[in-house]
Parts: sequence; structure tokens; C-alpha cells
Amino acid sequence: MADRVDEPAKRAGGNLKWGIDPPGVLPAWIAEHDLGPPPVVRHALRRLADLPDVGYSRRAEELGQAFCDWAAQQHGWRPDPALVVPTADVLQGIWTVVAAFSAPGDGVISTPPVYPYFHDVAPELDRRSLECPLRHDADGWRLDLDDLAALLAREPAARVLLLCSPHNPTGHLYSREDLQAIAELTHRHDVLLVSDEIHFDLVYPDGTHCPTLALPAAAGHTVALYSAGKAFAISGLRAAVAVFGNEDLHDRFNKAMPPHLLGGVGRAGVEAAITAWRHGAGWLDDLVALFDRHRQMVLDVLAAELPDVGCHLPASTFLAWLDLSACELGPHPAARLVETARVRTSEGREFGTGGAGHVRLNFGTSTVVLAEILDRLVGALRR
Amino acid sequence: MADRVDEPAKRAGGNLKWGIDPPGVLPAWIAEHDLGPPPVVRHALRRLADLPDVGYSRRAEELGQAFCDWAAQQHGWRPDPALVVPTADVLQGIWTVVAAFSAPGDGVISTPPVYPYFHDVAPELDRRSLECPLRHDADGWRLDLDDLAALLAREPAARVLLLCSPHNPTGHLYSREDLQAIAELTHRHDVLLVSDEIHFDLVYPDGTHCPTLALPAAAGHTVALYSAGKAFAISGLRAAVAVFGNEDLHDRFNKAMPPHLLGGVGRAGVEAAITAWRHGAGWLDDLVALFDRHRQMVLDVLAAELPDVGCHLPASTFLAWLDLSACELGPHPAARLVETARVRTSEGREFGTGGAGHVRLNFGTSTVVLAEILDRLVGALRR
Repeated sequence: MADRVDEPAKRAGGNLKWGIDPPGVLPAWIAEHDLGPPPVVRHALRRLADLPDVGYSRRAEELGQAFCDWAAQQHGWRPDPALVVPTADVLQGIWTVVAAFSAPGDGVISTPPVYPYFHDVAPELDRRSLECPLRHDADGWRLDLDDLAALLAREPAARVLLLCSPHNPTGHLYSREDLQAIAELTHRHDVLLVSDEIHFDLVYPDGTHCPTLALPAAAGHTVALYSAGKAFAISGLRAAVAVFGNEDLHDRFNKAMPPHLLGGVGRAGVEAAITAWRHGAGWLDDLVALFDRHRQMVLDVLAAELPDVGCHLPASTFLAWLDLSACELGPHPAARLVETARVRTSEGREFGTGGAGHVRLNFGTSTVVLAEILDRLVGALRR
Repeated sequence: MADRVDEPAKRAGGNLKWGIDPPGVLPAWIAEHDLGPPPVVRHALRRLADLPDVGYSRRAEELGQAFCDWAAQQHGWRPDPALVVPTADVLQGIWTVVAAFSAPGDGVISTPPVYPYFHDVAPELDRRSLECPLRHDADGWRLDLDDLAALLAREPAARVLLLCSPHNPTGHLYSREDLQAIAELTHRHDVLLVSDEIHFDLVYPDGTHCPTLALPAAAGHTVALYSAGKAFAISGLRAAVAVFGNEDLHDRFNKAMPPHLLGGVGRAGVEAAITAWRHGAGWLDDLVALFDRHRQMVLDVLAAELPDVGCHLPASTFLAWLDLSACELGPHPAARLVETARVRTSEGREFGTGGAGHVRLNFGTSTVVLAEILDRLVGALRR
């Protein structure tokens, strides 16, 4: 895996992350890394372009099996391919699952600060937004189980809990014990667990990702969502999977959201995801090793140069959640940093409750670019 | 455009049309032609594979404009790009539009014999299937306006009319006058017109396709669905558009089916469709000229060799609707022809009322392959 980013090519090719600002600004915002796709995926895309056609095929039917084999190999968890439904992307999975399993007026719980699109689910589907904000202590950010229990007792209309596991933006990994407790609590209150596990492959050696559906206690009321997009940087091609905990959930979803309503998944996304899952493990190991060094580099620079900036070492993702509240940057620190550091991060308040004063920094880039990003932040924040 | 099919490559590449039977059987079934994609589209796919990434981009936002420019250039009709919504495929457009604008129990009218998937819309969405069967006379198949008026008067619960224009499987082109009458009738009965116009680019020089939305009388209650897939043979990549007649319809759809529920449209499908619509006109002219010769070849062979087989010259599509009821092939003539002619056509009864005794023959292939298909049919049916 080449630790290198061709910046002009990124900007010329229509990449959103690199294209939103003028060339003087370095991007560290949207959750896409700059090192993909792996050569084997690129090769599969070239082969597709060279086929005699890109017409109808049954290739999408192999997506479920490829995912299940990958889950078994990488995570020691073997889901049933018959319970896997292809979707365009993880967001379509979330929206359609919430629409299928809840009714207008029902409560949808999120755990802010969290992936900003989670906040749009309830209003767009005429559901009610409920929040169980994470708590922050010396060890980092975590979901407090007593808070969740109290919320569920207080809000009998709650029908869905949106879990982000591994957690974006904090990189928190839910422990098996916490997931077990969450599964039991939601089961008791008849709440569906919708587990967005899109960062599942980006976990550092000192941690483990526990798939929610690996817990028997979760199976009866959980749908988990995955994509090869985050690890292999192929999100633009669109291919993801929704994994249902049992046949009953799968059948109910299928009846509410028949395959033609979901739409077909395109051949390019299917080829890229299948190829990544079948042949991408070695490349991914190198990527995770690189980002492991990067996360440490971020923490080291902050400790040495910007001790006022709060940050916990993320156990997963290529994202660092920076507390800049001591830096006096005003209500929109990310916007301010575009001007003062020429670096674009993600605005913390977009992640909801608890996000004010924070920015999310994407360190999923080359070491050279990351070093420049950190230099610029240090220069701007030390002033 | 090369009038040539690489059969082994088709079978090896996972093509569904060529892969369903052993190599001894020639495919003339599923509505995909064998001559695409155009070199310019293939080039765009290679360029995509060579980009530094296939990550997030805003390219899908250009799809609507590209479609509207194409509609203006090819059909003299200029829709408003603000009323165009990208979908994965035309079927997703149909399913989501029917789900958005009708309720369980409402009647959905189709006009059999017609594209088989139309028959699944109502049962899958808990709507009621209603039929206004086409009539057949010496001039071909057509929708009888008195039949439609009577059905609408008889069935006040009817809420949607699924139109297939140009019509699959007959290749019928609706005249402006007929569409005007259909638009007025449906308007009077508060019935939404869902117009699947996927074959719009495959019209022979003696006919004209009139887009339903080109009629002001249709605008207030019509959604039309298009894709570059049929003309340019890129259906496997998934990219289509739904065009709404006015802002109110667009807004209501968007509220019922927000973009994340529809799912993102993949970059490969988007690049292929935009490229086809911006640069594919010359190639398409050659394709239509070739298929114009093919439709005549089908009719000439039938007239000379198989006078008992009924067929009208299709004004559109690369499909011929053959009446084999005089050939004594039993209840499943297409299945029979796989055995006796080693040719796979589509079974007429899958197209619903009026389809028994028929098969649909796909002549969208090379002249050499079509000649072999016709030779085999003549050999089998003359016995």
C-alpha cells in the first residue's frame, strides 16, 4: 500500500473531499480516507470496463456470501447469507429499516455526539428524535447504561435505537458486556437495535470490534449495516449490506421494502465490494498499521505542542475527536480553522449534543499530508 | 458501431442474457441488446477505474441536467432539471412512486400484455391490481380509450395508471392524441399517470415518441421514468431518473421518499449515463439503423417462411411480439422453443392477459446471430 496522495489528481477527478475548497486548504473533514482503492479493486473495475457489456447479471447475489465470508475471516462471526440484503449504502439501510419497523410518531434514539446524518432520520420519516447523550470522562466517551435505561423507562414510544459501533466521531469500541446490556435493555422495551458498523474493519491492534449480531441476545431485534466503503475507499460506487438477526425480521423488512423499492445495486459497486472482501485483507492490514501510526502521531503532536486540545486515542476509525473549547475559536471552530490553519475539519456541533467546541479531524491520508495538516493546526492554535 | 457479438466473452463475463442456458442455446429473451456499451462509455468507465479514488463526489447532481439536455436534443422536450430525481433503476422509480402517491387497497391499473414486472407492483405494495387489456386488430395492439374510461368509471378506487410508452412487448408508440386523451381521463378521475418510457430512444424513422410530460394536460399528475440502460446497454450499472410533472408532485415524493431512503446512485452508473447522454447520439443513430434492418428482417423471414406466425412491425424497441397460437406449441411456447429451436425467447403469458400463445423475441443482437436465431425458429416451426 503506497503512503502517498496525488493531490492534483484528487482535485481533478471530482473527489468531494478534495474538491470543496481551493487548493490552498487541506481536507480533513468527510469520513473518507485518501489511500484507496487497493490495486486489486482497481483491477476489478478495469476488468468490468473491458467486459463485452455491463448489462444484467446475477453478480449482486454473491455479495451476501462474500460479506459473510469476510465477517468470519476478519471478525470471527459467521452470519447467514440468507439474512443479508444488499442496499445502495448504509444510509439507505438505516432509513429503510427505520421506515419498515416503526410508525410515524415513534421515538428514534440516537447517542450524540454522533454521525450527523443520524439526526435527520427521525424528522425525515416523521418520527420523534430522542437522545441519550454520551458521557465524557477521563477515559473518553461512552454510553451510560443507566441513562439509557432511564430514557427507555421514560419514553415508552421509543421504538428504535441507532447505534454507531465503532463510534463516529470518537472511535469508541463498544465492549461485548456493554452490547450485551444494550441488547437486553432494548429487548425488554421492545426497541429495535439498528447498528451502523461501517467502520468495523478499521480497528487498531489494542482493540476488538464486537459485531452486535454476534450476541445471541441481540438477534431477535437487531439489524446491522455494513459496507466495504470506509475501509477500501469505494463509497462512491454504492454497495452495502443490511444483516437481519433472524428470518422473521428479514421477512418483515422484505415485505415492507421489497427489492424493487430498494433498487438494484450497481455492478461496479458489487464487483468492488466482493473483490475487496475476497482479496483485500493484506492491503487492509497495511492500511490499519499506517493509520495506527497516524493516530499516535496526532496524539503525540497534540501532547507536545497543543496541550490545551483534548483528545482520546481512538480505538477505531481514522477520525480524531478534538476538544478545542479551551482555544477560544468562537462558535464554529472548524470554519475558523479553514481561515486560520487552511485545514478543513468537520464542525463538532453537526454531531449534536456534546459537539460544541469540538472538531473531527480525519487522519486517513498520507503521512506527508497529515504532517502538514498537524503543522498548520499547531501554527494556527499556538498563536 | 460494430455489428458483432463476442459470444464466449459474453458467457464468461457473467452476462445474464447469455449465461442462463448452455452454449448451444441462443438468447433472445431479456430486454437487453448485445451491441453495447458504446466505446465512449467504455472509455468513461476505464477513466473512472484510473481515477485516484472512487469516493464521494457530486457527480450524480449532473445527471438531471444531462438527461434534460438529451431529452431536448433527441426528443424536442426540455424538462426542468429541478424536477428530476435520480433512482437506481426504472423499477425503483415505479415502486417508490406508487408507494408515495397511493395507499394500501388502492387500485393500480396496468395494460396487459405488458412488461411482466408491472404485475408485481400492486401485490408487493398491498395495492389492488386492475387491468385494462390492450385490444388487438389488423393494425396491431392498442389501448382502447373507451375501455379505459369504463374501467375508471367502474373502479373509483383506481389511483394509478402504469403506462409503458413505448410499449413493451408490442413496440407500440402512443400517439400524441391518445396520450392527450389518457391524460385528460386520468386527470378527471384523480389517477396518477406513471409513465415508464425506458425504450424512448429506440424509435424507428417512421415513428415518433411523444414524452407524456410534453403534454401540458399531463403535467399535474404524471411521473415519467427514464434510463440510458436500454439504448446503451448499461442497465447493470444502475442509474435512472424519475421526472415529476410539477413542483408539488416532486415535493410530495421527496417527503414520502427522502433521498437517503432511495439510496445513492453509484458513480459508475452516473458516469456511464452522463457520457451516453452527452456523447452517445451518433452511436445510437447507427444502432437504431441496424435494429431498423433487423425488425424488417424478422418480418420478412416470418412472411416468407412462417406465414402462420402473427407479428406486427414494431415501431419501437428491439422486441418482436410473436403470435404462435397457430403453431400448436402447447401452453409454454417459449419453453418449447428452447428444446426444439435452441432459442430462448420470453414466455408470452408472463406478460399477462393476452399473452398466451405468444413469445417475445429480442432482435437486439448482431445480424449474424439474429440470422441464426431466425433460421433455428424457421427450422423448428416449419416441422
